[in-house]
Amino acid sequence: MNDFAKEKYNKLKNIVDEHIDKYIEIVYPESVYKSMKYSLLAGGKRLRPVMAIETATILGASIEQIIPTAAAIEMLHCQSLIHDDLPCMDNDDFRRGKPTNHKVFGESTAVLAGDALLSFAPKIIIDKTQSSVKPETILKVLNEFFMAAGVDGIISGQIVDIDSEKKKISKETLDFIYEYKTARLFKLAVRSGAIIAGANEKQLEDLTKFAQYYGHAFQIYDDILDVTATLEEIGKTPGKDINAEKSTYVSMYGLDEAKKQALFLCDKACDILNSNNIKSEILIGIVEKISEGINKCS
Amino acid sequence: MNDFAKEKYNKLKNIVDEHIDKYIEIVYPESVYKSMKYSLLAGGKRLRPVMAIETATILGASIEQIIPTAAAIEMLHCQSLIHDDLPCMDNDDFRRGKPTNHKVFGESTAVLAGDALLSFAPKIIIDKTQSSVKPETILKVLNEFFMAAGVDGIISGQIVDIDSEKKKISKETLDFIYEYKTARLFKLAVRSGAIIAGANEKQLEDLTKFAQYYGHAFQIYDDILDVTATLEEIGKTPGKDINAEKSTYVSMYGLDEAKKQALFLCDKACDILNSNNIKSEILIGIVEKISEGINKCS
Repeated sequence: MNDFAKEKYNKLKNIVDEHIDKYIEIVYPESVYKSMKYSLLAGGKRLRPVMAIETATILGASIEQIIPTAAAIEMLHCQSLIHDDLPCMDNDDFRRGKPTNHKVFGESTAVLAGDALLSFAPKIIIDKTQSSVKPETILKVLNEFFMAAGVDGIISGQIVDIDSEKKKISKETLDFIYEYKTARLFKLAVRSGAIIAGANEKQLEDLTKFAQYYGHAFQIYDDILDVTATLEEIGKTPGKDINAEKSTYVSMYGLDEAKKQALFLCDKACDILNSNNIKSEILIGIVEKISEGINKCS
Repeated sequence: MNDFAKEKYNKLKNIVDEHIDKYIEIVYPESVYKSMKYSLLAGGKRLRPVMAIETATILGASIEQIIPTAAAIEMLHCQSLIHDDLPCMDNDDFRRGKPTNHKVFGESTAVLAGDALLSFAPKIIIDKTQSSVKPETILKVLNEFFMAAGVDGIISGQIVDIDSEKKKISKETLDFIYEYKTARLFKLAVRSGAIIAGANEKQLEDLTKFAQYYGHAFQIYDDILDVTATLEEIGKTPGKDINAEKSTYVSMYGLDEAKKQALFLCDKACDILNSNNIKSEILIGIVEKISEGINKCS
């Protein structure tokens, strides 16, 4: 990622952080608000909301129009992490370098904080977007949001992921998990940005393809880091895929083949942007970050 | 409840059952759809969706306009029951006379099925209402939905309920739990019905007050049944409030005072309907069902 993109990325990330902090005011009953805010403000690269803002603004929308949706997408991502980390799911103790939500607030509050975010996020979209975006457009964005959040998105990815533990799975099943658990949220980010900007069908299609290639590359890179990085580097317990006997690109095809495949997908993602004249230093930059990371850990 | 109301109630209940069944098609990955459908079709009186349909139709909306929202409200109610029954929450083995969701599908699937319903429900409202209701009105209904579902509704009720176990609490705290955990969903039912029918502010206000009195009476009656009824009669484990050392109207003021208070609230609920010329055999009938039940268990 070049310096210009880095600077712009950090500027947008700060805007996201500020708005998330502002949107959630701690009132009675404090424990649930504190639990929501703890996970939301526990760090994180804000990749999905930055992608949403970048997509919307390069296509002509204002930051004000997209920021509530961008923050809502981060809330959805955060909700899925809180629930995925639960003892009955992946049973993780660390996330973004800090103790997981249920380790700090207890399981019942962690379940409820996740549930709360699933309503809080779309409510933010409605409340904060109504003055600058048409109702029909807001409904379209909400529709994308619920697709990504539910059985057409991360829920099905997580179900198949859990059902596949300790089993031999096909490439199709692995691709399903990567698509639903990971790529769908990136698709939500670029698609909602594009919808708010009033993009045409062709633009929506191109950006969806970009998010698909990027999402799969991102997940394979995550698998690679699970076997090559330390807790400090990734902020979560490494080696957990192996311990849970999860099938990943790395376990199924080996580290070298996984790197090759991720780099291939990075190229495809960049091709989509270049050949369709989508000019975004940030979208190119986040793909480069993955390919640079892979080349470094050789 | 008179025979006319009973017949109409059952007719509306059947329409709700049919639509819930139809809306959820079991596709891959089947386990999450089966888990959602298991709890949704495990019985239940369909009280909230029937209230929504009744309110909408007496105010001039068509059944087609309100049914998706009515079904969505039942899905939300069902989601809250699935998560409330989890081992880390109320740890219940039975619900509506059948084993709870996590007992059948396991904890991880129960958490995810609940999460899935929280997206599935508002998506049904958008998908199935768009052809007959204006976008602005749908956004208003969704806003009510997320208020009831989140920190302005059942989440805060459940958090305070759990935090209050084994503690002496004030009447204000008990009323907070009843209002948020129980009454807010009834308010959602009548308010969304009224909004879809294009009700005016005064009508909305009256119906909200009705739902408030009804909701509190309903919860006190639930507490009374917890100490007087059998598993067969209520479909869930009785005596669980006492076992969890929960404060209820019954434990705080005794059975007789609880009955008196519930009957007083029933009267207030009926007064609202009568003095504001809200003519509904069903709304009157569901209040009568509570007062009849209380008078029977003396």
